[in-house]
Amino acid sequence: MEELTGEEVAALHRDHVMQSWHKQGEAVMPIKRAEGIYFWDYDGNRYADMSSLLVCSNLGHELPEIVDAIKKQADTMCFMSPAYASEPKSRLAKMLVDLAGPDFYQRVFFTNGGTDSNENAIKMARMVTGRPKIFSCYRSYHGSTIGSSNASGDWRRFAAEMGGTAPGFVHFMNPNMYEDGYTRGVDDEAVTKEYLHRLDEQLQYEGPDTVAAILMESIVGANGVILPPEGYMEGVRALCDKYGILMICDEVMAGFCRTGKMFAWQNFDLKPDIFTFAKGVTCGYVPLGGVVVSKAVSDYFTDHVLQCGLTYSGHTLACAAGVAAVNYYLDHDIAAHVKRMEGILKPFLDDMASKHKCVGEARCIGLFAALTIVRNKKTRELMAPYHASNSVMPQIMGRLMKQGFATFGRETNVNICPPLTITAEQLRQELPKLDETLTWVDENLCD
Amino acid sequence: MEELTGEEVAALHRDHVMQSWHKQGEAVMPIKRAEGIYFWDYDGNRYADMSSLLVCSNLGHELPEIVDAIKKQADTMCFMSPAYASEPKSRLAKMLVDLAGPDFYQRVFFTNGGTDSNENAIKMARMVTGRPKIFSCYRSYHGSTIGSSNASGDWRRFAAEMGGTAPGFVHFMNPNMYEDGYTRGVDDEAVTKEYLHRLDEQLQYEGPDTVAAILMESIVGANGVILPPEGYMEGVRALCDKYGILMICDEVMAGFCRTGKMFAWQNFDLKPDIFTFAKGVTCGYVPLGGVVVSKAVSDYFTDHVLQCGLTYSGHTLACAAGVAAVNYYLDHDIAAHVKRMEGILKPFLDDMASKHKCVGEARCIGLFAALTIVRNKKTRELMAPYHASNSVMPQIMGRLMKQGFATFGRETNVNICPPLTITAEQLRQELPKLDETLTWVDENLCD
Repeated sequence: MEELTGEEVAALHRDHVMQSWHKQGEAVMPIKRAEGIYFWDYDGNRYADMSSLLVCSNLGHELPEIVDAIKKQADTMCFMSPAYASEPKSRLAKMLVDLAGPDFYQRVFFTNGGTDSNENAIKMARMVTGRPKIFSCYRSYHGSTIGSSNASGDWRRFAAEMGGTAPGFVHFMNPNMYEDGYTRGVDDEAVTKEYLHRLDEQLQYEGPDTVAAILMESIVGANGVILPPEGYMEGVRALCDKYGILMICDEVMAGFCRTGKMFAWQNFDLKPDIFTFAKGVTCGYVPLGGVVVSKAVSDYFTDHVLQCGLTYSGHTLACAAGVAAVNYYLDHDIAAHVKRMEGILKPFLDDMASKHKCVGEARCIGLFAALTIVRNKKTRELMAPYHASNSVMPQIMGRLMKQGFATFGRETNVNICPPLTITAEQLRQELPKLDETLTWVDENLCD
Repeated sequence: MEELTGEEVAALHRDHVMQSWHKQGEAVMPIKRAEGIYFWDYDGNRYADMSSLLVCSNLGHELPEIVDAIKKQADTMCFMSPAYASEPKSRLAKMLVDLAGPDFYQRVFFTNGGTDSNENAIKMARMVTGRPKIFSCYRSYHGSTIGSSNASGDWRRFAAEMGGTAPGFVHFMNPNMYEDGYTRGVDDEAVTKEYLHRLDEQLQYEGPDTVAAILMESIVGANGVILPPEGYMEGVRALCDKYGILMICDEVMAGFCRTGKMFAWQNFDLKPDIFTFAKGVTCGYVPLGGVVVSKAVSDYFTDHVLQCGLTYSGHTLACAAGVAAVNYYLDHDIAAHVKRMEGILKPFLDDMASKHKCVGEARCIGLFAALTIVRNKKTRELMAPYHASNSVMPQIMGRLMKQGFATFGRETNVNICPPLTITAEQLRQELPKLDETLTWVDENLCD
């Protein structure tokens, strides 16, 4: 086959690919190759991948260790079905249980990605508890299939609700300190108390013994890296314990060293009964996701049939990529590197919040960060009100992209989540571009 | 890393992998490698893969053309996110539209597998029509996430209904001529008339203008390769046309030359508005699925936002494997080879139905085949009544496996769906094992 030109790639995409979350037929940039923290278009322009694509390319692009593992596995056995055991699947399951804590966790159910991980976690929680309801946050995203989508809080769930909302999904409001009018580091205790009180009240009105699980992102990702106030997550865990409810943490974005811990729930003093993962487990090189369950949850299924399954559960090539990625996180102590890089990124973003009229708040944990962009810092008027049409945010993202700083934002946030392998030098090279764009926003879009 | 022994692979699996559709902690056979139509355990025993694993390894294992494409793509760019175009994604979308028929079809939405393909097709149908209801068959399986699972007909949907059934899913009974007491080739006209009448009646009672889509496997797969009576599928299409309902064909198992046509709906005189695929598109080497939509469906989304999306939509490595697989189907005219092999398999299975007390009916189209196993041929008493516990079927499958004939069955069926690349010689080598096991069943399990 002859290679296509960039124009051909773009034209075929425009005419024949259905584009996620967009109207169809719009122009999309063709990308030719990727390496490390960069990718290149067909004109040779280089972009720094400052969002790790969709917060998945945690170890950057074309890491030789993962590529080699894929090629080696491809030479032996790309895929063996769930009915049989294979070395990569067995090995990865064991590694993940060990990382989560083998005193408390027992088994891994493998899937293809984040949304089916959450789907299966929901089904498991209902089977184990015999209860119907799943509590989840309004400020959240868990996937786009009908179950995960109904559990999601943001507007991206509406299409999955078109036949009617799926039964048993109950939403509660999780704190977003800045947008709720509070100040992080000052009001945490009061906000935690208030929001836990409201959640407890809602649980009581729903009937706590009808609730199978509380499903939460360990740290809310796509909706703007919303850091929970001190003590909040532990308080949710305590409510779960009080009522015999399972706690499910969605680690799809936040897991695999993104926050400077292997799993983001390890930033809190708690253990979820079930947690879901995807993205960072293979850094996106091959699709893979999964569900890690506690001994107690696992034990239930030694006596009861697990009514979950999919053709590619424990996909051999994907698990081989996963083993290589997890080994790399460990061998290179990526968690420690992330904490060091946080030492550069966090002060920089705090500085942006002080310096720029348009930055309401900066949030950063590890290399998981977002800025809340505001029109008016005094009134905290957001640059893009929730679910606004005609938002100016794409304009801001477009300016960053033109500077070779590729990232995504959603609602009124700009996410900064570079590959975890980014160096201090690379950070110092890229971050001034953000500063420059923010200055433009100050001057052109703020009150 | 040192290689694990077979015992270690099996032990880690037993202790740490959650096994689909089973109780946990049971022993599972470890598989070391696969090639062509065979795979091998750690003791060097060879098994002929007579089900293409889960009807996905259509081109057998370790096909050099697909392996090379994976390795080549792995060296350039394993993954670029849906926001950007990439050559494998653009190319595969165009190839699939061309194969489906570019006069009628326009675009492809890529997913990770079968269940999320059906989830997205359901969401699209509701968006396009503005109607809530999805009709689907009792005798069907569409996946295990909450939407696809609610659309599925067999008992594997029950776990997804635990929070309550998802709204808008309506089931109808599709014909299974043998189990319904009819004879294929004799009663087709009457059965078609009867079942279409019942479906039309049910549509009228549900209110046809509340129905977004009728979702059907082009040929029901996991539930036993149920061949529809002559004219039935065309009749369903006519009902869709009559009421402005979209027809969605699920091609996850039946697609990609399995039936001797590129897509199984091409066996009928109809075009679905939407069809879903997975498995055969990459033969399972890398997880990939998708949804092909008509121009009319596509056009709706040029004016309306497609409220569907996933991180790995159009996964680069997966699409590269897909391009290689589709090229192989075409370059080697696999469809024609399948028709030739059908010429061996079908008469053999018909012979089994004549010869064995335990074979109620043989069904075969292309290399998509199943036998209905009965206890009593005269009364048509099934060997395993629907959703029976303590079925003897696993015993039958176990005997086949011991002979090196690996396949799966469900309910009272034994599926025979070997890789489409199987040779006449290989078929003639493997099929006598089936004959032998059926003789044992005749003698030991029949009345």
